[in-house]
Amino acid sequence: MFRSLTSFKTQGPVLSRMALRLYSTIPKTQKAMVFYKNGGPLKYEDIPVPKPKPSEILINVRYSGVCHTDLHAWKGDWPLPTKLPLVGGHEGAGVVVACGSEVKNFKVGDYAGIKWLNGSCMGCEYCMQGAEPNCPKADLSGYTHDGSFQQYATADAVQAAHIPQGTDLAAAAPILCAGVTVYKALKTADLRPGQWVAISGAGGGLGSLAVQYAKAMGLRVVGIDGGSEKKELATKLGAEEFIDFTQVSDVVKEMQNVTNGGPHGVINVSVSPRAMSQSVEYVRTLGKVVLVGLPADAVVQTKVFDHVIKSIQIRGSYVGNREDTAEALDFFERGLVHSPIKVVGLSDLPKVFSLMEKGKIAGRYVLDTSK
Amino acid sequence: MFRSLTSFKTQGPVLSRMALRLYSTIPKTQKAMVFYKNGGPLKYEDIPVPKPKPSEILINVRYSGVCHTDLHAWKGDWPLPTKLPLVGGHEGAGVVVACGSEVKNFKVGDYAGIKWLNGSCMGCEYCMQGAEPNCPKADLSGYTHDGSFQQYATADAVQAAHIPQGTDLAAAAPILCAGVTVYKALKTADLRPGQWVAISGAGGGLGSLAVQYAKAMGLRVVGIDGGSEKKELATKLGAEEFIDFTQVSDVVKEMQNVTNGGPHGVINVSVSPRAMSQSVEYVRTLGKVVLVGLPADAVVQTKVFDHVIKSIQIRGSYVGNREDTAEALDFFERGLVHSPIKVVGLSDLPKVFSLMEKGKIAGRYVLDTSK
Amino acid sequence: MFRSLTSFKTQGPVLSRMALRLYSTIPKTQKAMVFYKNGGPLKYEDIPVPKPKPSEILINVRYSGVCHTDLHAWKGDWPLPTKLPLVGGHEGAGVVVACGSEVKNFKVGDYAGIKWLNGSCMGCEYCMQGAEPNCPKADLSGYTHDGSFQQYATADAVQAAHIPQGTDLAAAAPILCAGVTVYKALKTADLRPGQWVAISGAGGGLGSLAVQYAKAMGLRVVGIDGGSEKKELATKLGAEEFIDFTQVSDVVKEMQNVTNGGPHGVINVSVSPRAMSQSVEYVRTLGKVVLVGLPADAVVQTKVFDHVIKSIQIRGSYVGNREDTAEALDFFERGLVHSPIKVVGLSDLPKVFSLMEKGKIAGRYVLDTSK
Amino acid sequence: MFRSLTSFKTQGPVLSRMALRLYSTIPKTQKAMVFYKNGGPLKYEDIPVPKPKPSEILINVRYSGVCHTDLHAWKGDWPLPTKLPLVGGHEGAGVVVACGSEVKNFKVGDYAGIKWLNGSCMGCEYCMQGAEPNCPKADLSGYTHDGSFQQYATADAVQAAHIPQGTDLAAAAPILCAGVTVYKALKTADLRPGQWVAISGAGGGLGSLAVQYAKAMGLRVVGIDGGSEKKELATKLGAEEFIDFTQVSDVVKEMQNVTNGGPHGVINVSVSPRAMSQSVEYVRTLGKVVLVGLPADAVVQTKVFDHVIKSIQIRGSYVGNREDTAEALDFFERGLVHSPIKVVGLSDLPKVFSLMEKGKIAGRYVLDTSK
Repeated sequence: MFRSLTSFKTQGPVLSRMALRLYSTIPKTQKAMVFYKNGGPLKYEDIPVPKPKPSEILINVRYSGVCHTDLHAWKGDWPLPTKLPLVGGHEGAGVVVACGSEVKNFKVGDYAGIKWLNGSCMGCEYCMQGAEPNCPKADLSGYTHDGSFQQYATADAVQAAHIPQGTDLAAAAPILCAGVTVYKALKTADLRPGQWVAISGAGGGLGSLAVQYAKAMGLRVVGIDGGSEKKELATKLGAEEFIDFTQVSDVVKEMQNVTNGGPHGVINVSVSPRAMSQSVEYVRTLGKVVLVGLPADAVVQTKVFDHVIKSIQIRGSYVGNREDTAEALDFFERGLVHSPIKVVGLSDLPKVFSLMEKGKIAGRYVLDTSK
Repeated sequence: MFRSLTSFKTQGPVLSRMALRLYSTIPKTQKAMVFYKNGGPLKYEDIPVPKPKPSEILINVRYSGVCHTDLHAWKGDWPLPTKLPLVGGHEGAGVVVACGSEVKNFKVGDYAGIKWLNGSCMGCEYCMQGAEPNCPKADLSGYTHDGSFQQYATADAVQAAHIPQGTDLAAAAPILCAGVTVYKALKTADLRPGQWVAISGAGGGLGSLAVQYAKAMGLRVVGIDGGSEKKELATKLGAEEFIDFTQVSDVVKEMQNVTNGGPHGVINVSVSPRAMSQSVEYVRTLGKVVLVGLPADAVVQTKVFDHVIKSIQIRGSYVGNREDTAEALDFFERGLVHSPIKVVGLSDLPKVFSLMEKGKIAGRYVLDTSK
Repeated sequence: MFRSLTSFKTQGPVLSRMALRLYSTIPKTQKAMVFYKNGGPLKYEDIPVPKPKPSEILINVRYSGVCHTDLHAWKGDWPLPTKLPLVGGHEGAGVVVACGSEVKNFKVGDYAGIKWLNGSCMGCEYCMQGAEPNCPKADLSGYTHDGSFQQYATADAVQAAHIPQGTDLAAAAPILCAGVTVYKALKTADLRPGQWVAISGAGGGLGSLAVQYAKAMGLRVVGIDGGSEKKELATKLGAEEFIDFTQVSDVVKEMQNVTNGGPHGVINVSVSPRAMSQSVEYVRTLGKVVLVGLPADAVVQTKVFDHVIKSIQIRGSYVGNREDTAEALDFFERGLVHSPIKVVGLSDLPKVFSLMEKGKIAGRYVLDTSK
Repeated sequence: MFRSLTSFKTQGPVLSRMALRLYSTIPKTQKAMVFYKNGGPLKYEDIPVPKPKPSEILINVRYSGVCHTDLHAWKGDWPLPTKLPLVGGHEGAGVVVACGSEVKNFKVGDYAGIKWLNGSCMGCEYCMQGAEPNCPKADLSGYTHDGSFQQYATADAVQAAHIPQGTDLAAAAPILCAGVTVYKALKTADLRPGQWVAISGAGGGLGSLAVQYAKAMGLRVVGIDGGSEKKELATKLGAEEFIDFTQVSDVVKEMQNVTNGGPHGVINVSVSPRAMSQSVEYVRTLGKVVLVGLPADAVVQTKVFDHVIKSIQIRGSYVGNREDTAEALDFFERGLVHSPIKVVGLSDLPKVFSLMEKGKIAGRYVLDTSK
């Protein structure tokens, strides 16, 4: 039973069935993974299929990636409260099955992606400059808007991602958040082809994507992470140099040695405060340190004297916008970025969260919503 | 009667009156200036008040500027065909009287502006990078969408301009196209405060706005136009130097003299092919020549050798986007840009077009829709 | 006697008098303010006039500003060691009296300025991108190269500033470091005309210059400092809003109120760690915090979560390069920036240092080298 | 006999032999290819070895590329007069054998390159912004300064290129002008990795370098040229698409088809006026057309209406500066760009010019100065 989820029924005015351009038969109920309070049980239930508003599309989600943010949403340990009850997930790839009356850029049958930013006001100063993720009214998939851990989800048509027909939807799913996020961070570093970029946390899920994007953008990559497996992975994916922090006594000195003066940019996929602070030290004069992860309480320090003399920058990079998403997908479609995934059923989400908490996930878990 | 304007009834699904948040009483019919074929009679008629789509607002237009483009739309002498019958106008300032169900960024009672770009798909590569005026599906006010030469007009809520309460709506009207266009051209020139910009056609309607925006942006302005009246106006508005092409034998040499080497940028408000070609000659090494007017057949020539050796650029600038509009209005609201207008009744439009064709308009005519 | 200053005699090959294009008579000795060890006595002595290398000019310094950095140089409390014995000073304005054989861009009689960066290698990666102040071989006036606290000083011709004939050299002196530094910081903030910039420390010597440059660049200025005198000064110079931190309980909230969301950029002229940290909190989403002062030990902290979500940046800005210097001087020459100075004799330097240490200087002290 | 070349003896003050840090034995005379009037006989003669000024280095030129510009210099058909008599050549790669007293960034034994811009004033507004090739006092190798068609040539140390030890100097020579020029043009197009760039003239000497640089910068390349050999070469070097203008009836339509709307940028290596004009037509909306060749009389036309509506840009790109040169060499050093050369003796220059005039050169001829 799903009576309490009244919000599902009131998202926008109810359109007549005629107004929806139907795609085969859309069921009335579907399978979803729901929780009713933060940190409470994750229930695999039957819930109503949501109805798209005039500006939304309804997507039959085939696969959804699982991101660290989903764990934060479930636990509720971020400053921003989640919708409750909530269907999480924000890396959903599927097929459009219905379009609201105002939708101009999708048709039934198109492949579409659900991303972190489900919708925004499009009218504020941030939306006007293309920084929709910074919109104060941002509607977030799997956080303030039911997300991709269900078989049918709604998405604002303007923000939903276009995925070319024929794409492997399971492999594409993690690109929608993980891929876009690291790609955006690389754009934020604003480097030119031929410059050095350090990927701190190069052997992890985000890091391994970052290494590939950086290489495809013509950058020279130095990976940093711990252990020979990580080294092997990062090197295979395109890192020209690798620093194993478990083996090197002075990371700052070693980084400056291998890059002949420090990397021009650093992408801090790792959210270790020590790693982030080191990156401020080893970055090249005039270089840019990008913060991209969202640890709840971490602080980064910078010495003013050095910061000024070296004229460095610390730049925050949140998630990508529509254009960043299209570009990140394009690199993936062209085969320049591979997404290492492991597919399990939607009902296996609790196990995935458990592994994630233990830090035992390499690559990305993707949920098949049919299971 | 207005039977043939069937398009008025089919713009979007008909919303129930309940769906509209009403503002006082919206009449069923209104006064409008309509034409049924390009170049045909301009009729001052009663037509139905249009209904906003879920994504649109309905604006009670109080004032509308008259732009050269409106003349082109009526005559139909541009490559792009207009909607027919058509209500022209794309510089409308008024008050929101109804909002479609999906509208998030306006409420009834807000001041709003209708601009050239009424709406766009928001999903194509151009919309995604904020270049909505370049959208292939762009819906244009007073061209493919009935515009501001009527008392009640619909506008896409995302694209409609926000105008602060208390603004002088008559004076604000010309900012919505003329102001935004020259401001965008100045941004396209990409100059830094303290550099020289030449405004070619500085004494005209667009030019006099360009001079003011340039000055407010910290630029040094050299105006170019013909006649002492134009000189006086441009100088009063902030031009530090002025070249009267009716008095100077060698415009190129004179321009380079007064700017110590040529202006860093040129805004070609004048669409005289000779003036545009001269600007390519007199612009400073590394400088940027901006084309912004839309003459039907003009061609600009550039000598490749000089273009390369001087490393100059010729940049096309179309109309502004949402952000440019907000910024251009902000300069106006802060009193840094004055818009010289003459207010007449909506029914006087044919007289205004006639004056415009004869080149007898200085400043901007604004129509009061109540007359 | 000046025997120990042997370095004066060995700077570059000694050119024959013929190779120097002489300007009136250059004396063999001159008055200078010298110290022999860091923190030791400041001596007003007769020392030899230095000889310019082929790539240098010899400037008859008429006036020199006194900067906080000069105090650091004398004390030797920065990580970088100074030359010893040392003639300090790096804001010198005067007249060229001799040119080395390789000098192409100055002639005897030109006005010229000595700035912090006396010379650089011009061949390293930093010099090649115009970031000469970041050159590892940077030669610093009044630090590693005898500076402007003497009547005749040498300067690398490429780096020396061009000052238009007829300029008030006493007033121009502080522009050469203080002016250029705040102007460069404003450029580093990369704002567009019409945006808000906060000047933290708006009522001090650097701050009052920053307010004026910001205004001339078309920015909206909010000053922040303590006391009604500072408020009056900042407001008079162009600050549209002012926050008196001695009167306001919540600076962050107040700043966001008066700027409708926070300033788009912040120039931290004040080096108070608390003020710098507050600026990271109150800056607008997507905004840029610029660090520009050089406190010996201060640290700035930033919360990673907020830094990322707000997508802000902390940018270090060191001193300006040749182009920044020319631009900063141009604003001064055009009368847009006034430099509040107090002129005393060169021999009064110890008193000026004493006042500086006590924090009792408002505006800028300028030394007349003839006294 | 070489009496008339008195200029060789008066470049700068004669330094004592002691002032030069000598490298083995520098002979007094050397072999050079000289002409005494434009279009006159090219003489293979013995001339004095020039002496470096204090700011110059003396390079033992081992190899020199031959560029179309050298042909123009010899003929004297450009608006700018050459020095006479003249030793041409501006793609010289060799070894430093002496350094002037002011040289800070080279030492004897270093590898160094002579490029088109031999030296500049470093003090004008163009030099100050790193646009030294645009300096009005630019000193040009093989044009206003004796160039690389001799065994020993002088070069301003600031402008001379650093070449890593161990580099194949014959292969590196063409990078110094041809490589840098196309790389600079690609930077001028200001594209992001993943965008389409058209190389017009992709199968020629410059074009084949442009294809490789573009690919290394992460761009998608569409080549355009005539004939299947050119197609094969361009494709082998990295062009993803190729348009053979001898086989395609509508180049504009075909270009827009293969790039799904037109390339984001175009590099016009070909200087055919028709090809350049077509590029203005087929470039994508918002795209950038780069002009880089220097045909003596060609003109490019652009239709103002289309230029504005499509918001395109025509950008002139001259030669690269110090930074562009270092970057272009770095791509070469890393093996990402191969330079197809044919080595002949210095004395064979007349034959090379003859082939060049007949348009019979594919790739680049490089002269061995020892023959």
